Amino acid sequence: MPEKELSGLVHSIKPVETIMHDEIQAHLDNLTKPRGSLGRLEEFAARYCMITGRTRPDIPAKAVLVFAGDHGVTEEGISAFPKEVTFQMVHNFLQGGAGINVLARHVGARVKVVDIGVDHEFEPVEGLIDRKVARGTRNFTREPAMSRAQAAEAILAGAQEAEKAMNEGAGILATGEMGIGNTTPASALTAVFCNMSPEEVTGRGTGIDDDALKTKINVIQKGLSLHSPDASDPLGALAAVGGYEIAGICGLVLSCAVRRRPVVVDGFISTAGAMVAAALAPAVRDYIFAAHQSVEQGHRAQLRFLEQRPVFDLDMRLGEGTGAVLAMNLIEAGLRIYLEMATFDGAQVTPGSEAV
Amino acid sequence: MPEKELSGLVHSIKPVETIMHDEIQAHLDNLTKPRGSLGRLEEFAARYCMITGRTRPDIPAKAVLVFAGDHGVTEEGISAFPKEVTFQMVHNFLQGGAGINVLARHVGARVKVVDIGVDHEFEPVEGLIDRKVARGTRNFTREPAMSRAQAAEAILAGAQEAEKAMNEGAGILATGEMGIGNTTPASALTAVFCNMSPEEVTGRGTGIDDDALKTKINVIQKGLSLHSPDASDPLGALAAVGGYEIAGICGLVLSCAVRRRPVVVDGFISTAGAMVAAALAPAVRDYIFAAHQSVEQGHRAQLRFLEQRPVFDLDMRLGEGTGAVLAMNLIEAGLRIYLEMATFDGAQVTPGSEAV
Repeated sequence: MPEKELSGLVHSIKPVETIMHDEIQAHLDNLTKPRGSLGRLEEFAARYCMITGRTRPDIPAKAVLVFAGDHGVTEEGISAFPKEVTFQMVHNFLQGGAGINVLARHVGARVKVVDIGVDHEFEPVEGLIDRKVARGTRNFTREPAMSRAQAAEAILAGAQEAEKAMNEGAGILATGEMGIGNTTPASALTAVFCNMSPEEVTGRGTGIDDDALKTKINVIQKGLSLHSPDASDPLGALAAVGGYEIAGICGLVLSCAVRRRPVVVDGFISTAGAMVAAALAPAVRDYIFAAHQSVEQGHRAQLRFLEQRPVFDLDMRLGEGTGAVLAMNLIEAGLRIYLEMATFDGAQVTPGSEAV
Repeated sequence: MPEKELSGLVHSIKPVETIMHDEIQAHLDNLTKPRGSLGRLEEFAARYCMITGRTRPDIPAKAVLVFAGDHGVTEEGISAFPKEVTFQMVHNFLQGGAGINVLARHVGARVKVVDIGVDHEFEPVEGLIDRKVARGTRNFTREPAMSRAQAAEAILAGAQEAEKAMNEGAGILATGEMGIGNTTPASALTAVFCNMSPEEVTGRGTGIDDDALKTKINVIQKGLSLHSPDASDPLGALAAVGGYEIAGICGLVLSCAVRRRPVVVDGFISTAGAMVAAALAPAVRDYIFAAHQSVEQGHRAQLRFLEQRPVFDLDMRLGEGTGAVLAMNLIEAGLRIYLEMATFDGAQVTPGSEAV
C-alpha cells in the first residue's frame, strides 16, 4: 500500500505558476534602489511569492527536520566515525548542543528530530519523533538496503512529518540529516541519477584518508554492480542503495511541493534525497532552494541535476541542515526586502533614468 | 592639524597577534562535528577571537555606519540617478525604509547615518549625525575633489564616529555609504591603488548604458591625468579623486583596527575606502572581513589588494552596507558555533578517527 499512496502524492504535484511574475517584478522595481541591485535577494523574494501563490505573503515561520538513520554498509569501513555516533548525535540534537541547534537558534528556526531508521532503541525521550522504519539499512554490498515497501514507508513518513510541521505553522522547511556512513548511499544514488561513475561523485565525507576513500568507492561500485539500480525506477534505486534519512528527505521535498511551500535543501545527503524526489516528480525542482555549495565531491553534479544554483558557499560539509538554516535566513532577508522596503513614491525619492 | 592627528591614528595600528591560534583551533576541533566541517564559519570564529584578543568573547552588538556624501563630478553625467537622490535617501534611511534599514533590522544591527558631505542643508532631524565637511566634493575633472586638510578631516570624522559607536557598545562594525555618483571616485581610487586602467576597474554603478559608461571612463581618465594621484600618497590620492563618504569609511576601518575590533566592509565604494586605509596602514587588512562579491567591475581587484575572500556572493550592487550587515550575521553564526556547540566529552559523543 505505501507504494500506491506514494504514487498519489507524486501525482498531485504541479509546477509553480509564473502568472504573478510581472506584478512581483513591478513591485521590486518600484522599491527605493536601482533595479535589480539586490541581486539574488530579489530572486529569492520573487520565487517565494510564486511558490506560495501570494503577492503579499507573510514572513513564514521556519523549521528544519533532521532525519536520523543508520547504514548497514558501515560494516565495510567507509566512515571516519563509528556507527554509535548516530544515536549519540540524536541525543546531542535533543539537548541543543549540535551545530544545527546553534544555527537554528541563531536564525529562529525550529528543529524537529525524527528517528526514521536509527539502529538503537531509544528510551522515550522528550522531543524525539519516532518514525523508525527499521534499525538501520542492510549492507547494500550484500542485499538491498531496504525493501521497496520500506523505502516507500520512509518517504511517506518524511512527507507526513513535513505536513505536520506545516500544519503547526511552518511556512518554509529545511532538510537535515544525521547518519554515520550516509555519504556512501548518497554517492551511490548520485552515480545512478547523474549517470556518473562512483569515482566522480564520491568524496571524503566526515574525513577519511586516501585508503578509506578507495574502499568507499569500491563498496559503492560493488553495490551498483549487485543491484544495477535504474534511474527510471527511483523507488527501486532508493531501496537498493539508499538510506532511511534520505528517503525521509525525499518525502519532505515532495510534501512541500504538494503544499506549495518552499523547501531549502542542505548539502550532499539532503540533495541526494531531493534528487530522488525530482526523479519521482520533476516539478519539485520549482519548490527547491539549494542552500549552499558543499565541499563534498559530487554535490555539483547533484545541483546540475536539480538545476539549482546554491545560495552561498562557505566550504561547509557537516550536514544536519546547518547550511539550510543559514540559507533560510538569507531567503527571509530577500522576502523582507520585498515586503518592508519603501517605494520611490512613498519615500519621495526620484527614480533613476531608464537606462538600466 | 588633521593630517598630524591622522598620522598618530595610523601609527597606533598593530597587526593581529596569532598567539592564541592553537588554543582556538583546539576548541573548534573538540566540538561535536568532523574537524573543519563548518568551513569558513570556523575561520570567522577564529579570526574574530584573534582580532579581539579573547578566547571566550561575548556575542558582539552590531552596528553599521552609513556615510553620505555628494560628488561634484556628477556634473559630468556619470550616474543614472540625479544628485538630489543622495539627500532623499538620507531621509529614507532615517525613516527606516531603505534596503539597509530592512536588512539591519533583520539581523539586529543598529544603523547610524552620518552626513559627512551631502550637498543639502538638512533641517535638524532626529537621528542624523552631522559631520559635514563640505557640501559635496568638487568636480575632479577640473580641480581636486577635496583639499588634503578636508580629506584628513573626513577620515578623522569617520574614525571618531566609529569610536563613538564602539563606546556605545558595538563590538563589530559594518561600513555603509550613500552618494550618487560615488562609483566614479571609487573606480578612480581603485585604478590608482591597483595600478590598473580606468577601463579595467569601471563598471555600471546603479545602472548606466554603454554611452554613459564610456563617458564615465573618460571622466575618470581626465581626473587621473589632471592630478596624477600617487598610490604612495594615499591621502593625496583620496583628496584628488575621492569622496567624503569614502574618507569616512577609511576612518572607520582605521578606528576598528586601533580598537582591535573586526570591521565588515561592504561592496565597491566601501572597499575603496578600506583600500585607502590599507594604503595608510597595511595591518588593517587583519581586521577586515570582506562582506560579499559585488557585481561592480573592479571589486575583484580591490579584494586582491586587500587579500580578502568575500563571505558570500548574491549578485548585489546596492551599497548602503546591505551586504555587510548580512555578512555580520554569518560571522556571528560562526562565533555562536564556537561559543555554543557541545564538545565530544560534554555530549558523550565518540570522536572520529584521526584520519582527517
